[in-house]
Amino acid sequence: MSAENITGNISIVLFRPKHAGNVGAVARAAKNMGMGKIIVVGAKDLDREEMEQRSTHLAKDMLDAIQYTDTLREALSDFQYIIGTTARTGRARGPFVTPREAARKAASRASQNKIALLFGPEDTGLANEQLRFCHCVVTIPTSREFTSVNLSHAVMILCYEIFLATRTTDTSSDGPRLAMSSELEGMYRQMSELLARVGFLNRENPEYWMLDIRRFFSRTGLSSREVKIVRGICRQIEWYAEKGNK
Amino acid sequence: MSAENITGNISIVLFRPKHAGNVGAVARAAKNMGMGKIIVVGAKDLDREEMEQRSTHLAKDMLDAIQYTDTLREALSDFQYIIGTTARTGRARGPFVTPREAARKAASRASQNKIALLFGPEDTGLANEQLRFCHCVVTIPTSREFTSVNLSHAVMILCYEIFLATRTTDTSSDGPRLAMSSELEGMYRQMSELLARVGFLNRENPEYWMLDIRRFFSRTGLSSREVKIVRGICRQIEWYAEKGNK
Repeated sequence: MSAENITGNISIVLFRPKHAGNVGAVARAAKNMGMGKIIVVGAKDLDREEMEQRSTHLAKDMLDAIQYTDTLREALSDFQYIIGTTARTGRARGPFVTPREAARKAASRASQNKIALLFGPEDTGLANEQLRFCHCVVTIPTSREFTSVNLSHAVMILCYEIFLATRTTDTSSDGPRLAMSSELEGMYRQMSELLARVGFLNRENPEYWMLDIRRFFSRTGLSSREVKIVRGICRQIEWYAEKGNK
Repeated sequence: MSAENITGNISIVLFRPKHAGNVGAVARAAKNMGMGKIIVVGAKDLDREEMEQRSTHLAKDMLDAIQYTDTLREALSDFQYIIGTTARTGRARGPFVTPREAARKAASRASQNKIALLFGPEDTGLANEQLRFCHCVVTIPTSREFTSVNLSHAVMILCYEIFLATRTTDTSSDGPRLAMSSELEGMYRQMSELLARVGFLNRENPEYWMLDIRRFFSRTGLSSREVKIVRGICRQIEWYAEKGNK
């Protein structure tokens, strides 16, 4: 698979971007680096003219191809590896990686998997609620004095690193084909229900331990088959627990 | 010298930028990566409000500190190492380096020298007339389909690479202190006059060979003392040639 085809498997997902100009600038950066498509979540009414001003007419095709979705779950459903971004390592959950490390991960997986780079709103960034979808979380290194990086600049740095990584990383190997986000989310839902039922999870705050569980599976990387096995085990435990409690 | 102090020795020089918004975005990127100052050449009337919109109020101090000059010669005069940027390797003269290589050069020289990163106008980029000031010329790798990178994105990529390089390159060594651009330009002017007088350079197009000579000295890197020695040799040859032709 050529390097250009590989970057085409990588998409930019913008969660609730506020400024149309930034989306235009993202389109230009993504096209410079040969990325696939752009998905915009929860922001359907961005001014088209402002977008085009910043994308330039040469990246207008990227704007035309933007997919708009209402929910992040929907946007990410058929991606197999999701890289989030945050400026605040304090509150968010890792594993945190540098753009260069994330790029190596993306490059080595992109010939077999669809990869999403997920960016939050300009003012607040991604919250834990969105970061829990991610297999790893990137923080862009900056001067301590001023850590707030423009959205399109953050996209450019990540795309640039990935562009270089696809040219230096061995992408010819048949790396594992990972489960899609929708499969993983189904599994997590089932596990969460089961673990709440057996009293492991607090029904008031089920996400508390689920984040650790998500983190573990994200680090490992599950195939579709393995997701099915885990779900089979959950079903079996459910059946057994039901039986015993009758 | 700390990494933060080192990046402070690196300045961004924008030659005839057309869009105030881009200058604002450059200020933000430069501040994110702890760079020194910004110099704007040949563009005094850029809209301040547009700049501030893109710099955000947190990088407003970078805008306040912008130095404006009429000529590039003036802007570069007290820099000792100048890195140019171009998208077109075809017409321009190298040596061409990647952003990462340029960053290593900058990081290893910045504790002893003042470094300028030189960027051209958004539409045309730098011409050879400006590139001849440069010790090396960077091209940002892109997809072949769309090579035109936004000005502030190009600045961000270079600053980001330099920021990382100052944290990984050994900058503690007393690298050579290089001659300032104004010293070099004085030397080139003198050499050019001498070489034209002795018939080596065509008076119609003296730059033809001078570019090769500039390239050689840029690669080597001259100290102030060496510039004085070269100028002394030129003066001596002039004197000798005058004498013989009396």
